[in-house]
Amino acid sequence: MKQRSDFTSWQKQAQTYTEQTLIRLLPPASQLPAPLIEAMHYVMLDGGKRLRPMLVLAAAELGNAITEAVDYALAAVECIHIYSLVHDDMPEMDNDSLRHGKAACHIQYTPATALLVGDALQSMAFSLLSQPTSLAATRQLHMIQTLAQAAGCNGMAGGQAIDLAHVGLSLNQTELECMHQLKTSALIRAAVTLGGLCCQDINQQALTALDNYATHLGLAFQVIDDVLDYEQDSHILGKTAGKDAQANKPTYVSLMGLTTARQYAENLVQKAIDALAGFDQRAVHLRSLAQFVVARNH
Amino acid sequence: MKQRSDFTSWQKQAQTYTEQTLIRLLPPASQLPAPLIEAMHYVMLDGGKRLRPMLVLAAAELGNAITEAVDYALAAVECIHIYSLVHDDMPEMDNDSLRHGKAACHIQYTPATALLVGDALQSMAFSLLSQPTSLAATRQLHMIQTLAQAAGCNGMAGGQAIDLAHVGLSLNQTELECMHQLKTSALIRAAVTLGGLCCQDINQQALTALDNYATHLGLAFQVIDDVLDYEQDSHILGKTAGKDAQANKPTYVSLMGLTTARQYAENLVQKAIDALAGFDQRAVHLRSLAQFVVARNH
Repeated sequence: MKQRSDFTSWQKQAQTYTEQTLIRLLPPASQLPAPLIEAMHYVMLDGGKRLRPMLVLAAAELGNAITEAVDYALAAVECIHIYSLVHDDMPEMDNDSLRHGKAACHIQYTPATALLVGDALQSMAFSLLSQPTSLAATRQLHMIQTLAQAAGCNGMAGGQAIDLAHVGLSLNQTELECMHQLKTSALIRAAVTLGGLCCQDINQQALTALDNYATHLGLAFQVIDDVLDYEQDSHILGKTAGKDAQANKPTYVSLMGLTTARQYAENLVQKAIDALAGFDQRAVHLRSLAQFVVARNH
Repeated sequence: MKQRSDFTSWQKQAQTYTEQTLIRLLPPASQLPAPLIEAMHYVMLDGGKRLRPMLVLAAAELGNAITEAVDYALAAVECIHIYSLVHDDMPEMDNDSLRHGKAACHIQYTPATALLVGDALQSMAFSLLSQPTSLAATRQLHMIQTLAQAAGCNGMAGGQAIDLAHVGLSLNQTELECMHQLKTSALIRAAVTLGGLCCQDINQQALTALDNYATHLGLAFQVIDDVLDYEQDSHILGKTAGKDAQANKPTYVSLMGLTTARQYAENLVQKAIDALAGFDQRAVHLRSLAQFVVARNH
């Protein structure tokens, strides 16, 4: 119980820190062009679980991290995540009108603005990661390479394309997992790796263990997303529920049933935690975040 | 006449080199997800003037450039340029069906695919620029920062947003130039700077002169684009002509008339060439490219 409440307090702190960092790093609201900057603030601030920034922060606890690099990393990862949501919600993709409990960007503004907001947020991510810091420049290039790969056709955008191509078609578990490895896990893995790369005292073995953790966590996250999408109503979820099933998209629930899907997610989280065995107390928040992923209700 | 034909031959060589470099650096056509990768090949290959890659190549002639860095730079700049065209042509933006003499991406494929193709090409640009090369890592970070700024809300995406916000409204010349500095010049300037940064023997003074050249050239390019859009038919232009006037967008022609606009472009090109005065024969192709920009008919 004590540990749980410690984590809740850390999580709150991490979310507040993320919000403040994003406010500081976004272009000021007064800057032109007004509608674009305003919409960037609208989608980036005051919403979301901030799971990926929390993963950056937790992984950055593993050894002597450079604070400014951590700040850029958590903001960059969140820029990529939010840009993908803005574009996914657009009429030609999922056509979703609700996101983080408020109107989706293309509804609040226009589809053209949503398109540009997503584009500008992706550029912003790479602008942040290429700011000078006291981290080695080669390390920063490694971070940029990691995030660019996770976002592109071998990562998130590729996963989206597979998802699109399979609406109304059945996928077996291997195919479904391949899609989610790209669509969701790639960015979760990048968040964890970026946090690790901000640490001056991290070695390749630790980075491999981190990646093993993140791969299992990323998959667990998607399984639980499918479970929640099936179980919950839109009010708690903060987005339109049951959309995937309505769209006849393959999900873990449609593939293996509700109970087995939830059990599968719990097994994956255990494997994620097992991958951290070589770390001591420094990995406490990474472990708690893994438990949080299966316990969450939105 | 001799000089002109030398340039024509250099230009052909540069275009072939660009095409071959893009083929080599794009994900192989056999790679999954098939529709996304195929569409990336469709939009990136066999089309366009390759002005920005040519600017990278010409600026890279200024002193001891690292070839692999030049290759990544010219491909990255073209990825950003092409992604912006793919997104601009979409129904919620300019709703244009013709590009480089063939069907626009959202027509040839679907709007959802066009959205993802643009997104994936932007990621690819930053993946390329963060590949290890024998250029100093700090120099590579400078290149990434330059391109990310040119693409984002303080550059191309910002210029698009201003453009969108002013359809049907009149702009004075200062406002029109501010928009084009962001929308078009920013990426042209980035192309020239990236080419310069690939040179091991370049100093800050030379980079400033290059940027001065590129700023004037970028503006001249947009003025001539407006002139061509007004004058030409779609067949030569390879895109739908007169669209800006139809859409009641402010242009240099609507602002200052055809003859004055063309004269203004010629003055800008002369200023661009003047900025190269400190360079010797090494800048020969940068000078020819500036002349090409006003002489082109598409």
